[in-house]
Amino acid sequence: MDNVEALKLKIAELEHKLKSLASKNVREKIEVMSSEVVDSNPYSRLMALKRMGIVNNYEDIRNFTVAIVGIGGVGSVTAEMLTRCGIGRLILFDYDKVELANMNRLFFQPHQSGLSKVEAAAETLRNINPDVDILTYNYNITSVEYFDDFSRILTHNSLNNGPVDLVLSCVDNFEARFTINAVCNEFNLTWFESGVSENAVSGHIQFIVPGETACFACAPPLVVASNIDEKTLKRDGVCAASLPTTMGVIAGFLVQNTLKYLLKFGNVSNYLGYSALTDFFPTMNLKPNPNCDDRNCVLRQKEFAAKPKVEIVKNVVEDDKPIHEDNEWGISLVDESVENDKENQNVGSGINLAYTLPGRGVGDGENSKSDDTSLEELMAQMKSI
Amino acid sequence: MDNVEALKLKIAELEHKLKSLASKNVREKIEVMSSEVVDSNPYSRLMALKRMGIVNNYEDIRNFTVAIVGIGGVGSVTAEMLTRCGIGRLILFDYDKVELANMNRLFFQPHQSGLSKVEAAAETLRNINPDVDILTYNYNITSVEYFDDFSRILTHNSLNNGPVDLVLSCVDNFEARFTINAVCNEFNLTWFESGVSENAVSGHIQFIVPGETACFACAPPLVVASNIDEKTLKRDGVCAASLPTTMGVIAGFLVQNTLKYLLKFGNVSNYLGYSALTDFFPTMNLKPNPNCDDRNCVLRQKEFAAKPKVEIVKNVVEDDKPIHEDNEWGISLVDESVENDKENQNVGSGINLAYTLPGRGVGDGENSKSDDTSLEELMAQMKSI
Repeated sequence: MDNVEALKLKIAELEHKLKSLASKNVREKIEVMSSEVVDSNPYSRLMALKRMGIVNNYEDIRNFTVAIVGIGGVGSVTAEMLTRCGIGRLILFDYDKVELANMNRLFFQPHQSGLSKVEAAAETLRNINPDVDILTYNYNITSVEYFDDFSRILTHNSLNNGPVDLVLSCVDNFEARFTINAVCNEFNLTWFESGVSENAVSGHIQFIVPGETACFACAPPLVVASNIDEKTLKRDGVCAASLPTTMGVIAGFLVQNTLKYLLKFGNVSNYLGYSALTDFFPTMNLKPNPNCDDRNCVLRQKEFAAKPKVEIVKNVVEDDKPIHEDNEWGISLVDESVENDKENQNVGSGINLAYTLPGRGVGDGENSKSDDTSLEELMAQMKSI
Repeated sequence: MDNVEALKLKIAELEHKLKSLASKNVREKIEVMSSEVVDSNPYSRLMALKRMGIVNNYEDIRNFTVAIVGIGGVGSVTAEMLTRCGIGRLILFDYDKVELANMNRLFFQPHQSGLSKVEAAAETLRNINPDVDILTYNYNITSVEYFDDFSRILTHNSLNNGPVDLVLSCVDNFEARFTINAVCNEFNLTWFESGVSENAVSGHIQFIVPGETACFACAPPLVVASNIDEKTLKRDGVCAASLPTTMGVIAGFLVQNTLKYLLKFGNVSNYLGYSALTDFFPTMNLKPNPNCDDRNCVLRQKEFAAKPKVEIVKNVVEDDKPIHEDNEWGISLVDESVENDKENQNVGSGINLAYTLPGRGVGDGENSKSDDTSLEELMAQMKSI
């Protein structure tokens, strides 16, 4: 004999519990970013960047669209950081599923195992900040059938239906990097490449402006060497090591430089490496290869060379000059860019050097600077990606 | 007229939904870390560190206890990274509540607003990795009534009821840093101090081994100057800026160096800074001040000086020598520690220099090394914490 009233009460109780568990979305969308200092304002600490003299107009962030390709150990944290910063729109690409084997990296949680990475990420990100507009694409960008769609989205799906403001590559293989490189060269899209080594203790980010800095195809020998390792790795079922620390640091570098680029403060690094064993951070500037295999890269280089002189000068100043006014460390920095790239270096040993490296200064030795990285070193690093 | 069967069906359906929402804890505890390469193994990518030659015995991590003081923007990410790495026991201290104003940093989510930081963190961390034993203390360590308990926990609550293996300071004020410093000097506990500047674009970590490296009281003038700013800031209701990027990077540095220290690989940095505007990373070695105001620091210094010579030599080698064998970047590094500390520097302007700084090498100029940081620079940085 069941008591109908008891059953109804039970239903009401369950519905209440369910509602409180399901409605994680506790905050409403916010129309205008406020700088009011109250505990309930999710933007007060970001708007403070304006008062602190770091950023001219933080609210600008709501106008930008960033595409992230690869929502793994680096890409997912990158997406979370940009979401918490209140970016206008995020476009996420990945074709993989969340696995328990991913739990040694930040972001995804065990209960999301089996879900598509982009969908699981979008759900979490919308809970964190409903103000961010998130689009997801659950497919492999290197597959021929999706290439056109990938290009179309990058060039038409920004908040104002134009090209995205920035593409962030957080993929783990060279094929995908080449696909992104090809699209960005063809459509003149600025992007960051990122990577973490198979032994988990080093990584890097690289800023690529088609025609202005080396593209991913500008240095072919490095890439060919690496591609072999990757295939071997996957075939033999050997898994690469990974650490939440290294991936968190690389995501931090990537998003920090994204903020600097979009909101126009500080200096955007052309190349920034992280070697965890010794806490060493090589930086360098990579110029494009005039004989690059990617014809769109060469085309962009010609366009850049043909730009009015005045614009080029402005660019050099932006890239080169450390902003001492805003540098509360009071550290006097040395220019580490274009001006040092006086000549190509001859590396010999059958390697065709496809770009210029910063020249070694006179008197280097015990006090060699971090951007004094040789091509051999760069190769060793690229191979280990 | 209610149909009892329909109501029962409704209850069953609601209970199923409720169960799937509530049971986020989808994975069972794991007795032994496996290196098997399967999607369901949460440790495969960590155990791979052994095969890659980075770590001798990754499973050792399960024997360690780490205390984290301050579960804010840096501390919460630090706790998450250590949890995902499978640390044995985590002890969390904080007395604050989660607010929407914290959402511009990683880890906490809007639905946790109003909850105690340590309890909200522990719930999330246990879902992420049930193998980690988590203890929480929801009180202010600087309060007189909790000081003894804080000391007792740090010295007795490790997995084997002894002192914790490491203390990580992730607090945002000097009072708490001094409390941690006092306890660690008294009970000879090794710890890392960390901090992020008020303008959100720089931060640092510092490794403190009582008697061997400078403690937090070894440089009093810097600290006094900074303390004023902090009080003014809180009184005026002005809020400091913060970014998920800078805090993520500092947490990454902190946990990476924690792993290097506990699992004995690479070189643990004595001091590592991060200046986001220019992607600059100062490093230095800070020696303890023989006239430090903390008498336990002076006591530890005497103990250290009295240690057998052979042990001291071993120590110097560990700290100084970059491990080239494991450095897949192939980068030749310069010693950046004790050997450079040839002499105290005279800084003048009424400042009592309490510790030695690395000496400036001959021929520095355009190629000055990152650890060539002057006291003025250090002061500017400390003030901005």
